[in-house]
Parts: sequence; structure tokens; C-alpha cells
Amino acid sequence: MFHTVTLGRKVSKEDFKQRVPALRQGLLLQQARLKQHGDFPVIVLFAGVDGAGKAQTVNLLNEWMDPRLLVTRAYSAPSDEESERPPFWRFWRDLPRNGRIGMFLSAWYSAPLLDHVRDGDDTVLNRRLDEIVEMERMLVADGALILKFWMHLDRDAQASRFERMAADPLQAWRVTEEGRRNLALYDSFVASAETIVHRTSTGEAPWHLVEGTDSRYRTLHVAGILRDAVERRLNHLEALNGDAPRATDTLQPDELSAPEIESRTLFDTLDLSVTLEQKEYKQRLKAGQERLGRLHRAARARGISTLLVFEGMDAAGKGGSIRRITSALEARDCQVIPIAAPTDEEKKHHYLWRFWRHLPRAGRLTVFDRSWYGRVLVERLEGFATDAEWRRAYAEIRSFERELTDHGIVLIKFWLHISDEEQLARFEERKNTPWKAWKLTEEDWRNRARWAEYERAAHEMIERTSTRNAPWVVVEGVDKRYARVKSVETVCAALEEALAR
Amino acid sequence: MFHTVTLGRKVSKEDFKQRVPALRQGLLLQQARLKQHGDFPVIVLFAGVDGAGKAQTVNLLNEWMDPRLLVTRAYSAPSDEESERPPFWRFWRDLPRNGRIGMFLSAWYSAPLLDHVRDGDDTVLNRRLDEIVEMERMLVADGALILKFWMHLDRDAQASRFERMAADPLQAWRVTEEGRRNLALYDSFVASAETIVHRTSTGEAPWHLVEGTDSRYRTLHVAGILRDAVERRLNHLEALNGDAPRATDTLQPDELSAPEIESRTLFDTLDLSVTLEQKEYKQRLKAGQERLGRLHRAARARGISTLLVFEGMDAAGKGGSIRRITSALEARDCQVIPIAAPTDEEKKHHYLWRFWRHLPRAGRLTVFDRSWYGRVLVERLEGFATDAEWRRAYAEIRSFERELTDHGIVLIKFWLHISDEEQLARFEERKNTPWKAWKLTEEDWRNRARWAEYERAAHEMIERTSTRNAPWVVVEGVDKRYARVKSVETVCAALEEALAR
Repeated sequence: MFHTVTLGRKVSKEDFKQRVPALRQGLLLQQARLKQHGDFPVIVLFAGVDGAGKAQTVNLLNEWMDPRLLVTRAYSAPSDEESERPPFWRFWRDLPRNGRIGMFLSAWYSAPLLDHVRDGDDTVLNRRLDEIVEMERMLVADGALILKFWMHLDRDAQASRFERMAADPLQAWRVTEEGRRNLALYDSFVASAETIVHRTSTGEAPWHLVEGTDSRYRTLHVAGILRDAVERRLNHLEALNGDAPRATDTLQPDELSAPEIESRTLFDTLDLSVTLEQKEYKQRLKAGQERLGRLHRAARARGISTLLVFEGMDAAGKGGSIRRITSALEARDCQVIPIAAPTDEEKKHHYLWRFWRHLPRAGRLTVFDRSWYGRVLVERLEGFATDAEWRRAYAEIRSFERELTDHGIVLIKFWLHISDEEQLARFEERKNTPWKAWKLTEEDWRNRARWAEYERAAHEMIERTSTRNAPWVVVEGVDKRYARVKSVETVCAALEEALAR
Repeated sequence: MFHTVTLGRKVSKEDFKQRVPALRQGLLLQQARLKQHGDFPVIVLFAGVDGAGKAQTVNLLNEWMDPRLLVTRAYSAPSDEESERPPFWRFWRDLPRNGRIGMFLSAWYSAPLLDHVRDGDDTVLNRRLDEIVEMERMLVADGALILKFWMHLDRDAQASRFERMAADPLQAWRVTEEGRRNLALYDSFVASAETIVHRTSTGEAPWHLVEGTDSRYRTLHVAGILRDAVERRLNHLEALNGDAPRATDTLQPDELSAPEIESRTLFDTLDLSVTLEQKEYKQRLKAGQERLGRLHRAARARGISTLLVFEGMDAAGKGGSIRRITSALEARDCQVIPIAAPTDEEKKHHYLWRFWRHLPRAGRLTVFDRSWYGRVLVERLEGFATDAEWRRAYAEIRSFERELTDHGIVLIKFWLHISDEEQLARFEERKNTPWKAWKLTEEDWRNRARWAEYERAAHEMIERTSTRNAPWVVVEGVDKRYARVKSVETVCAALEEALAR
């Protein structure tokens, strides 16, 4: 999940300087409006990797904003007074009143995360996360706007941040023993964090993931979301004009202002130039298919089902990759389910109903050629799903997929990616080849015109639904040989792992 | 919790006969409207104690309603086909489409409940309940109306139902070995059920508790709620006229039609004539207070805090009972917090904030003279809280109190009850006694005029918030001596239990 926020996003000094005045004015303006009209509190939580700039961001925001309308709290070990009361007591005491903004560092997510890194006790973690979700839901139901920022660094960036700090006499004191210990625990820390972020990223109070490497970028990102979220809520309440709020009012945009600052996505970091020579391709494909056939017979015997999801840009080569997988298997053991528009009967049910229907019996391999992810891709972009519907779909899909993998199903999701130019070339080829022309529709051209929007939606989808139990695999699709071999080999590796369990 | 549904509610044969025609017509009418205009499915779940009439009720509803628009499913052990898929697969497959009603027996609550009775594994139970809550929330967010009926019998009623069935040649086959085993496990069954009902009684899909002893009563109760809930939802959507639904639309009334059928409450089963002679009163009060002082010193030393909540009808004698408790303790170890209207500052926070503020340090005893329960009593009835606010308060209060008791706090909630006539007598006495007249306000007379509504609200409050960790104790308050001694002795018993842990 966190690989979508380690893209090296940056903002130059000049760009930063140019943006800051308007941003500061905007923040002050929203604070003033909030004080005057806002019958709700704003609760801003900061969590994340040490060294990703949580404290610096909070300090800067404090400098930029009106301190009389702002409360900032950072928590360390509970005092006597505090530990004699239930754990949430100190947080409740500090909650901002209506019309105010409260910024919280190391608040209610801190102890559950650190304890889980230390003891790995899932039961305790789940109970605490339930309590947190209930508390946040209670506050949101009462009107609170809760913004949660997860500031992230990858392991190397964290290590080098530490070294730089240790070498700087003015900063060395920040490098504590505990910080060093946490660095050594980076992987477990991130694993626990992923569980926490997924479990507590609700429609009412989603996490905003922030790339923490560049201080200018992360500041603009956080401050922009804060300003926009408060502004949106105030505008919305104004428009209601005393009416009762609608069911969708508590939903928050996932990324409000980030694309304005720096529009890079996961796909910009892909190396689409990778290729496979014909000879190596043939060898590896053959070996991969043989291995796949063998592994799947073993999985079949053990009753382990496999579900593969293929999504990707139009003409990215999904069909070709799918055929390389299915042709390695016995026909009766596998099935390809192409997903098009829902039938009338399907439309009369929850959108996940039709996918539940198609779940295979034990031991089968099923390929979904397009899938339930249509909800957050085409349905989102074409307006077939309402804002509220596609926004809540991330959590719905995560819980659907958890049902599947909890049952022992091997689930892999492929995103096949090509470049804008490559798609154009393939469209042209289809147009000009009589027996391929049927594959190209008006809709394809329409989707193509919205390339950047599709990329952003796919980026967000991968960020919000790539879990440990059901990961997304992004496949570089320009070279078809490379893509096919990577798909086949990925399935083999996943089956091998499942069989070794 | 379940003691509020074992009141012996009954409907006579004549009354039943008179009500049925309108009820059946109403059900058919709503089915037809649902088919024509209802862009949502209705999911009706039946669970509860064996012998409480689940199957009979479903059968009768099937007879009364249009079978073409109705799906009924009862589940036993999963088939091969079913166990090769995730547990929810078979339920998803059977979900009714929009415009239809589906009735489910022994569905998704069945295995979690029976497994927990058998193995007592809280971790597994909690995980499964989380999944259920997520799934129901997903369906409701998509528009589904979910009605959940818990049909209840107390242990004696269940046992005699069994004996009657066993003695009847036509029914004896219904008495299975498993049924007999479950009867032996009645207490654990009810304990697990209480956890499940509390945890899954959400604002979107609350449980309706149904007294199962009298077949006519339970039929009218269930059928009435079904008809009214569907009608309400359809009327509501009609009124919206294509507008987006509001945040409160998914909330369900807790008891829609029950009071019409039979207005008995918990308080009608109280024996308010209990008394204590002056001599016994003096002895027991003195002994109780000494014991309380001793126990509280021990609790103080161990850092165990005690929270007492006193609620009750006006002039029920809360103050007198509270003083008998506090006078037994060192003044610096205890505190009485009278709750009146919130201050301006308190109004600018979530309504629970002011109660969090007052949580005592370790080892203290704190009495709330009126409390957070104002939300579901006076605020509900006087309209100070919106419908959505007081309805969701039950779950909020349960989770607040769980925070307290999880921290080791001893929490007891007293409801002091007097009769209508007794209140009038006390009001008159206050009016005519110069040094008591200040105690009597216009508001008291206004509340008095709504006696029956207060009783129903208090009944519902006790049903929804009496948990194992934080039980309600109903105190018969007509005889003040009896009430005081019972209060003191109840606190003693709770402290003794806590100290023995």
C-alpha cells in the first residue's frame, strides 16, 4: 500500500514560495469562517514513520494559522492523573470545541501501533481499533470533521534522514535510542501500520497518505487538504441552509489538492521500456506454463482456489496474458469471466452480488477479465456510481476480499499498464487491421481522452486496496512478451507460497 | 437485557381476531407498493431461543403475504458446494432483489452464536461480528432495509414449552437431542446472545426484541413492525421525490407498533408494595453503611474506582438514597455530581464530553445524580436531541461504559421507580411544605403529564443499555426505607465482587 507514497514527489523552492501566500491566507480565512459559522470541531491527527516530518509540519501550521483558534497536543507516556482513568480520557479532555481546530500528535493511534510492533497481538490490536473506529464514528456523527494524515518514508529515506540528523550538532539530540530501535523494526512497523490504516480508513474518517521525503511537498499537501476540507464542509453547510445534512455529507475526498501540487502517480515511476528477447520469452513462458500446470494440479488436489483479477488501460494486453495462463491448465479446472455492464437482474442487487455468484468451487482457477474494480474506475469516472457509492467501495472491496482470502483463496490482482503513446499506436493498428477493428469502439476513444483521470483513479485504487492478503501487481505492458511472462511467473510464485503454507 | 422481554405480554383471542384482517391487508399493500416503487430489498432475520416461535411466525407470515414477492430461507449445516466457498457465499446468493422481501432463519447469526456457546472464544466471536456488522452496513448503505427479530423466552418458559411439545404426539418430533442440549446450556446461550445483540444492534440495523411466550402477541408484534417499517421507508422515499436520502434515513424506530398491541412495560411487573419496618431498616442500614465504608476503604487501597448513576422519576427519592451511600464514606473519597442543563462550553462539544471530564481518579466513588442517560430520557422526550441523536446514543453509551468498565471501574446504574399516585402524593406534600416547595417546579408537573411516555422511554433505555459489565438495578421506591437499603446493599455486593476478582 505504502509504495504509492514513495514516488519521490518534490516541490521546488520557487514553486513553494509562490504557493505559500495564497495557502496561508486560505487557512486563515477558513479558520475565521469556522469560528463564526462552524458548529463543528476539526480534529487533525498526525501519525506515521519517524522522521517523516510530523512535528515540523505541525509547527509550521502553527506558525501559519491563528493560534487563538488552534489547539495542538502531543502525547507522551500517560501521567499518574491520566493512567488512573480510561485510556481515552486524556484525548476527550483535549478535543477542540465547535469552531476550533485541534491538531494531535502521537494520539490514539500511537499506543496500539507501538504495542503491536512489540508484541504482535492481533486480538488486542483489533479490539483497540474497534474502539477507535467507534469513537471516531461517534464524533463524526455529531458533526466533527476528522482529518488523518499518515506521513511516510521508505526505509532508506528514514535511515538517511537519521544519519543526517545525527551528524548535525543542532539536530543530533533528536536521534533517540528509541528512534534507532524503531528504525531496526521498520518492516514490522510498516506491516502493523498497514493493518491499522486499512482497518481505520473509513468513509467518515479516511487516512490521507503523505509522502514525507520532501518537506515542501508534504507541507503543501497537508495544508492544502486541511484548507480544502474545512472550506468544503463550510460551503456545504451554508448551501444546506439549516436543512438536515444528507447521508453523504460526512464523506471526505481522498486527495483534495495533491494533484495540483505535483501530479506524479505510481505509473510515472514504472519503467515501461523493459523487454524480453524472443528466445528468452519462449523459454521462460514454456517453463512458466509447465510450472503453473504442475502447481495448479497440486492446488486442485488440496482444494485451494485461485482468483485472478485483470484490470488495465484499454488495449494493454489483458487478453493475451490471460490466455497464457489458462492455456497452461485443464479447461475444466479454470474459467474466464468477462465482466461487462451488469444485467437487469444484477442491477437489482448490491453491486458485489454478481461477483459473489461467480465464486468457484474449491480447487478451481478463475480469471476475472475486469472485475468489481469497475466501481472505482469506469463507474466512478463515467458517473455510473454516485460519489458516495464509489468512495465507500474501497472499504467494501477490502472486506469482500478478506472474506475470500480468509477462506484460503489465493487472490492476485494485475494492473496492466502501457503508455499513452503505446495505446494510440495499438488503437491505430486495430483500426487498420480488418480482423481487429471490432475490438475498437467509440468508448475506447472516449476513455482515451481521459487518460490522466484514469491514471489517477487507478493510482488511488491501488493505494486503497493493495493489501497483504490481496496485493496488486503492476505489470509493465508495453512489451507484450515481458508482460505475459511476468503474469505467469507471478501466479506460479503465489501458488508456490500458498502450497508451502 | 432480556428481562425487559419476559413480562408475560399477551393478546386475547378476540383481540387477535379483530386485528388480523387489517394487518394482513396492510402487509399485502406494502408488498405491492414495494414491488412497484421499491428500489430496495427488505431483509428480515429471525433468531432467538429455541421454542420462542421463530419458525411458526415465519410460516404464518408466509401464509399471510404474497408468496411471489417473498423468499424464505432456513439454513442447516453447509453443503459441499457451500463449504467450498467463504461462509457468506450462501447468504449472498439468497439475498432478495430490490422490491422483494427475504426472510431468513438460522442465517448469519446462527454459527457465531452456537460456536461461542460451545467454545467461549471471544476473539473468534468478535471477528465474526465485525464481519457481520460490515456486511449489514454495506447492504444498508446500498439501500437495503434490514429487520432483525430476536425471539425470546425465559428458561422456565422454554422448559415448559419443551415438555408440552414432547407430550404432544404431533409435536414430539420437534424436540430434538440438540434442542435438549441447548436447554441445558440456557444461561451460556443467553450470555452469548446478549453480547451478540448488543454488538450488532447498530443504528442501521437494530435488533427488535420480541417476547415469545404468547403466539398471538409475538405474531402481531413482528408483523406490525414489518408492515410499519416497509411503509415508513416507502413513504419516506416518496416524500424525497428523487432527492438524495438524508443521513438519518436508515435509522429504524426501535419499537414501531408494539405499544399499540400491549402497552405493558418492565415497570408493570414491579412489586411497588414492598416495605421495610423501621426497626429492620435501622439495623440493615447501619450494617450496610459500615460494610460499605469498609469495602470502599479496601477498594480505595486497590485503586478501584466506583461510579454510581441515579436516574428515576421525579420525586422518586434519588437524593435520599444517594445521601445514605455518601454518608458512609470519607468525604474526600467521594463526590456527588448533579447533572443539570449543559453549560455553554459543554454545548460546544459532543454530549459525552462533559461526563468524561468528571471521571474520578483511581479509588474514588462518584455519584452522578442524573447522567448521560438524559439523552434518551428528557432530551428525547422534550425534543432537545434529534431523533438521530438519541437513537444512536444507545450504542454510544454502551461503548462509553465499556471504556469505563474495561479500565476496572465498578459501574452501577440505579433506576428509582415510584407509582403515578405516589408521585402525585409527594408533589402535593412538597407543595404544602414551605421548606420543600422550592423542590417542585413547573417542569415537574409538565413531565408528570407525560408519565406513560417517560415509562416507555425508561423501559427502552434499560433494554438497550443494561449490560453484564454495567447493569441497571431497578429499585422499588415507594417505601423509602426499602429503596435506601437496597441501594446501599447493592453497592456493597458489587464492591465485594470487584474486590474478589
